[in-house]
Amino acid sequence: MTTPPRSVTIAVDAMSGDLGPEAVIPAVTGILRDRPGLEILLCGRPEIIEPLLPQTEALRARIHIEAAQDVVTMDDSPSRVLRAKKDSSMRRAILAVAEGRAAACLSSGNTGALMALAYMILKTLPGIDRPAICTPIPARGRPTLMLDLGANLEASDEHLVQFALMGTTLARAVYGIEEPTVGLLNVGSEETKGHETLRRAHRRLADGFPGYHGYVEGHDIHAGVVNVIVTDGFTGNVALKTAEGFALYLSGILREEFAASWLSRLEAVVASSVLKRVRRRLDPGRYNGASFLGLRGIVVKSHGGSNAYAVRQALERTLQEVAYDVPGHLAARLAPPPHEVTAV
Amino acid sequence: MTTPPRSVTIAVDAMSGDLGPEAVIPAVTGILRDRPGLEILLCGRPEIIEPLLPQTEALRARIHIEAAQDVVTMDDSPSRVLRAKKDSSMRRAILAVAEGRAAACLSSGNTGALMALAYMILKTLPGIDRPAICTPIPARGRPTLMLDLGANLEASDEHLVQFALMGTTLARAVYGIEEPTVGLLNVGSEETKGHETLRRAHRRLADGFPGYHGYVEGHDIHAGVVNVIVTDGFTGNVALKTAEGFALYLSGILREEFAASWLSRLEAVVASSVLKRVRRRLDPGRYNGASFLGLRGIVVKSHGGSNAYAVRQALERTLQEVAYDVPGHLAARLAPPPHEVTAV
Repeated sequence: MTTPPRSVTIAVDAMSGDLGPEAVIPAVTGILRDRPGLEILLCGRPEIIEPLLPQTEALRARIHIEAAQDVVTMDDSPSRVLRAKKDSSMRRAILAVAEGRAAACLSSGNTGALMALAYMILKTLPGIDRPAICTPIPARGRPTLMLDLGANLEASDEHLVQFALMGTTLARAVYGIEEPTVGLLNVGSEETKGHETLRRAHRRLADGFPGYHGYVEGHDIHAGVVNVIVTDGFTGNVALKTAEGFALYLSGILREEFAASWLSRLEAVVASSVLKRVRRRLDPGRYNGASFLGLRGIVVKSHGGSNAYAVRQALERTLQEVAYDVPGHLAARLAPPPHEVTAV
Repeated sequence: MTTPPRSVTIAVDAMSGDLGPEAVIPAVTGILRDRPGLEILLCGRPEIIEPLLPQTEALRARIHIEAAQDVVTMDDSPSRVLRAKKDSSMRRAILAVAEGRAAACLSSGNTGALMALAYMILKTLPGIDRPAICTPIPARGRPTLMLDLGANLEASDEHLVQFALMGTTLARAVYGIEEPTVGLLNVGSEETKGHETLRRAHRRLADGFPGYHGYVEGHDIHAGVVNVIVTDGFTGNVALKTAEGFALYLSGILREEFAASWLSRLEAVVASSVLKRVRRRLDPGRYNGASFLGLRGIVVKSHGGSNAYAVRQALERTLQEVAYDVPGHLAARLAPPPHEVTAV
């Protein structure tokens, strides 16, 4: 695992998420305290941000404010944001990356708008057709990185191969594994399963893609069978939300059953320390941070409902991507091998 | 809820599933004991079946044996089964339905082979292009019926509309609801979400399909938002297996946490009655039985790993489909409204 370079600036969309600066600023203060080389560029309305900043002079000196008057809401369509919200905190944070004033940016705002702005301002790396969204999913052992989670509803075999490159590059950054394993999501593990696009992608990956494991199925996602799972954005989005919904359903059942009788209520009290640990292990905040991969810059999306703890986790992920230089490594893997230069 | 007609024969593939007749025959004996009007046609090898039959004369008289020498294994490809296993217990059970000697058939065997045989022998109803696989999924309130779960990897808007008809007809049979609600699985609930095929299906369903709720998302599957969820077989298969995998992952975590210390092991003992009830509520055997819909006959697939309890649940589902006459009701909904016949 690489350590972050000495001095790094991260641009943060301070106005984003349900809690806005109330979650963002405590997270920023916390990470500044623990990471001496870090500086934060907070984008948003100064009159709202400033009263919330830490009093400590030393921390305050490492927070810079970039004024932005517009705020992107969860209901704004991407086209409206592109057209009518030119001075948004979200856009300013991405521009800071494009202009080299920040090494990465983080926002808890509207996913569609963030992707549209990031794609338009940063563009994709040469050899990448479309960016993809990738997030860690709790699994046995290490979390599984899955992509795409909704940036592309359909994906060609070429796109799926590109997703495999992006996902394994992120896995190197996040887990420090030299050759992460990668699987292609299908409805069975036999060669004959799946539609033609998947089978084409499978043949291409099987033909020498480092760490390629083959097909995986829905039940492999949480089993931790591979480090990276590649799929189209429609399937990935449905799978992710299905698991989230199942977790909610199950916690409802547990609550009901523990509330069913005086005896079971007593059991709930006794079991509560274990159940708390289970809840902590599955806390979505712990896995917070969806990476937008394939762009010429690092963009991380924090969940809209994030609290300060969750924003902090997403900031840590952002720093890992900076430390490893995910776009640089991805670009190097995409570039054709250089010709040998012969000294004359 | 309708009651099964007085005398009904169900054809059962006695050789199917990991446990074969060891699970099938106790399930058959149990249901015969509780349902006086029922008769069972057991298809398979008489020399294996006969020693396992109940001793009670009255039950034994309602079990008929149809000899079949071949057994379809889980590894057999559908084409091999069609070509080389003409005398399989699976094929005999479906033939009994085609020839009117049984009202429905049940098998715990290879899904692909069962679908191929059922499709070839029974054919689809007029107005149905392809059969679909539908199973109940545990959800808040009533289980949600989801289809397709893998018979069709891709689905046109016409197919999705047909799935909605099939699924709501099954919901009437199983839950006795006159107008079951139905949702179309997508990545968001806004009109603009999803690819073109989905949007076309959405417009057609929104134009007067009884009980149509609109788009639903992955997290709605277990929330019980609608009675029936319609999707293509690829997405449905991935979603179903993702949830199954998550359940396994979670039970692993619970085990780990309860085993973590002497205190938590004690908590496990105390909490065990509640955890047992939760496990029972989620027991896949309880929801066992995947209906093959759209065929000119009733075919139910029981899980390959089914024990006697699970096979019994699938038999009960089969009886519900017979009692309601799912293919008949589906055919009536597919037929154009009849012209009025004027008496002269």
